[in-house]
Amino acid sequence: MKEQVRIGMLGLGTVGSGVVKVLAENGTEIEKRSGLPIRIKSIVVRDLEKERLVEVPAELLTTDAWQVVNDPEIDVIVEVMGGIEGTKDLLLTAFRNGKSVVTANKDLIAEHGDELILEATRNGCDFLYEASVGGGIPIIRPLRKDLAGNKISEVMGIVNGTTNYILTRMTQMGMAFEDALKEAQELGYAEANPASDVEGWDAGRKIAIVASLAFNSRVNFSDVDTEGITSITERDIDYAKQMGYAIKLIGSAKETENGSISAQVYPALVPQDHPLASVNGVYNAIFVRGNAIGEAMFLGLGAGQLPTASSVIGDIVEAVRNFHAGTRGKFLVDCYEQKTIQSSLENKNRFYLRLEVADQPGVLGAIAGKIGQHGVSIHTMFQKWTDSQTAEIVVITHEVREGSLRDALNELGDMEHVHAIKQTLRVVS
Amino acid sequence: MKEQVRIGMLGLGTVGSGVVKVLAENGTEIEKRSGLPIRIKSIVVRDLEKERLVEVPAELLTTDAWQVVNDPEIDVIVEVMGGIEGTKDLLLTAFRNGKSVVTANKDLIAEHGDELILEATRNGCDFLYEASVGGGIPIIRPLRKDLAGNKISEVMGIVNGTTNYILTRMTQMGMAFEDALKEAQELGYAEANPASDVEGWDAGRKIAIVASLAFNSRVNFSDVDTEGITSITERDIDYAKQMGYAIKLIGSAKETENGSISAQVYPALVPQDHPLASVNGVYNAIFVRGNAIGEAMFLGLGAGQLPTASSVIGDIVEAVRNFHAGTRGKFLVDCYEQKTIQSSLENKNRFYLRLEVADQPGVLGAIAGKIGQHGVSIHTMFQKWTDSQTAEIVVITHEVREGSLRDALNELGDMEHVHAIKQTLRVVS
Repeated sequence: MKEQVRIGMLGLGTVGSGVVKVLAENGTEIEKRSGLPIRIKSIVVRDLEKERLVEVPAELLTTDAWQVVNDPEIDVIVEVMGGIEGTKDLLLTAFRNGKSVVTANKDLIAEHGDELILEATRNGCDFLYEASVGGGIPIIRPLRKDLAGNKISEVMGIVNGTTNYILTRMTQMGMAFEDALKEAQELGYAEANPASDVEGWDAGRKIAIVASLAFNSRVNFSDVDTEGITSITERDIDYAKQMGYAIKLIGSAKETENGSISAQVYPALVPQDHPLASVNGVYNAIFVRGNAIGEAMFLGLGAGQLPTASSVIGDIVEAVRNFHAGTRGKFLVDCYEQKTIQSSLENKNRFYLRLEVADQPGVLGAIAGKIGQHGVSIHTMFQKWTDSQTAEIVVITHEVREGSLRDALNELGDMEHVHAIKQTLRVVS
Repeated sequence: MKEQVRIGMLGLGTVGSGVVKVLAENGTEIEKRSGLPIRIKSIVVRDLEKERLVEVPAELLTTDAWQVVNDPEIDVIVEVMGGIEGTKDLLLTAFRNGKSVVTANKDLIAEHGDELILEATRNGCDFLYEASVGGGIPIIRPLRKDLAGNKISEVMGIVNGTTNYILTRMTQMGMAFEDALKEAQELGYAEANPASDVEGWDAGRKIAIVASLAFNSRVNFSDVDTEGITSITERDIDYAKQMGYAIKLIGSAKETENGSISAQVYPALVPQDHPLASVNGVYNAIFVRGNAIGEAMFLGLGAGQLPTASSVIGDIVEAVRNFHAGTRGKFLVDCYEQKTIQSSLENKNRFYLRLEVADQPGVLGAIAGKIGQHGVSIHTMFQKWTDSQTAEIVVITHEVREGSLRDALNELGDMEHVHAIKQTLRVVS
């Protein structure tokens, strides 16, 4: 039996520094809980001279990642440097060398999770990635273990803190999207190039990861339909508020009745009394629906140095316990069948529509009639005057197949009195 | 290596029937996730002739619990029959016979957890009890594993569905405590003798269990100060609402700065924008504060047949995986030190007070002065006329040591113009 577990870290940025900090500060507890002392043997950095967020002995630092994944003394690789192709090759080598891997790299898993899991399994290694979804919030391990008795039918929630911060500021302060984004960038919540967050790609990667676990079938990022928040206006937020809703960026993965999977990211109206409606700022929250548990929600900080480090260390502790018990790589049963991916056009949802129409008698009725022909029935409809020529109509539909709604919108767009379909959003029930 | 894992169930009531039902319905998924087929070999019932909530082959039923815990073919005992002393003896025997045990029995663990854990450890057996706290909500395993990298400073939340249902109905419908209790009894949410729920004992047992795990130090039920909800009136709920609070029964366990533990259950005012304020009906929610994760919340159905079965089966899957991997009893590191229990008098809290006083000039000032002498400073204070002779005063204090508040209240009670101290509640910040 081993006397200690040696870690090789790839990366010493924000999360990496957090891991070093917490391992030092909570060392006693962590050693007791994991069963073996944990020692960091090497840390790979790009620049040996750079000032660090945390103090580490200079002799731990190296720029040679290959040396670390090939070091026979190292038992666990902690990958917190990001990147996709090059990082994948390093981790594949680590597995071939019999090392367990803990990573926070959602882009990598959403892209190449299947290949990595296969290589980990082949070599009897642990591959753990709790930190890749929801920052500090436990969701991967609960799906794998706590909820193992359930058939999961849906996982949905707020999985991107940047967009949730922006939407919260737009809602609470009446800010425009651009201003809220700028503020988020100044606070370090959003990147200089914010596309990955505001276009819903980051959320899409996380949804791919949790869907794979929830339904035990591999879901890749390319299987997720993503829609971002750049089209959300103050007016949408205001109308939503008037009708008792908040607008949130929702990631959702469902197993449909025919056993196929649908995975989407979209901004949606969430009823004010729904627990997700009050998840504000950089908090994330994930709902899980299962046929035994009913529903459960996991809430916490979706990003940040220490919350993410908390998840990374939870995984390190598991990897170390498995070393201790001699059970590495025993429990990788995540994706044991391949279910088909269903087009989101087959999904049923309620919808919010905002239309600009000619301000003439009979227009409301004509619109209701036209969309009714496509089986879209109307729950709420009201008209706002915007200027002397043009009126604005807001519609909330009953549940309808997305494809049917698309067809109805195409025809609506061709109607003489409909100037523009300004917004189409889903409504969470 | 084993080819299947055989289960002996003690009890086939509501939860037991749920376990049988879910094991049958989700059998394929559960077998894939646990790595081995699971077969129920025996089920202990009191009366062989009784009609059951679920269909089971008659040959599985037996009235002889000792035969089951002594059956060498049985690997895992699932205890869902309740009871304390007799049940403890059965489980101790199961451990001595090398069986792992999964239980939902919070009364037993809160009372005799230390003795049972010791015997499980001695015999290399798993002892798992996720279902004992929060019904379907994962909280035991997250504390043991996901949050293993944290020093936990506080666990608090709503851990009793019955009282949460009663308080929700009092708040939303203006019902009196007695009427809401009666309704809860009619719906099967409260027992004929509701003392264990409404006096806070059930919540206290759950808090003892989570505190033991959070602080890795044994906390027993007798270490928890409990206060129930029987004194809560419509008037308290109404005043709280006016000031922007909901009243909830809160269980709380903290590790203080000096390293000792304080554990309490009490009804408290929770600010409306606190996530716990909107946890209504029979839902439970548990907050965890740790030095890495910041805070996280786990929400779900706190009781009920299938949610509780979900937790029991999550534990069965873990027990079976450990059989599969040959790692039973490897991970019991819950309580490795003994911290002292601190009197709740040393805790600091904000308080809500409701006093009946003489309707005379200067009374308000005299009261403020008197409690000020004990270092209690006032945040909000208002006076309501109740009749021509008597006024009602509501006070919210700033944070104060509980012992100091008690002293102040003793002196207040002796004041000539104070007719009665009608209510004293904590305020969650």
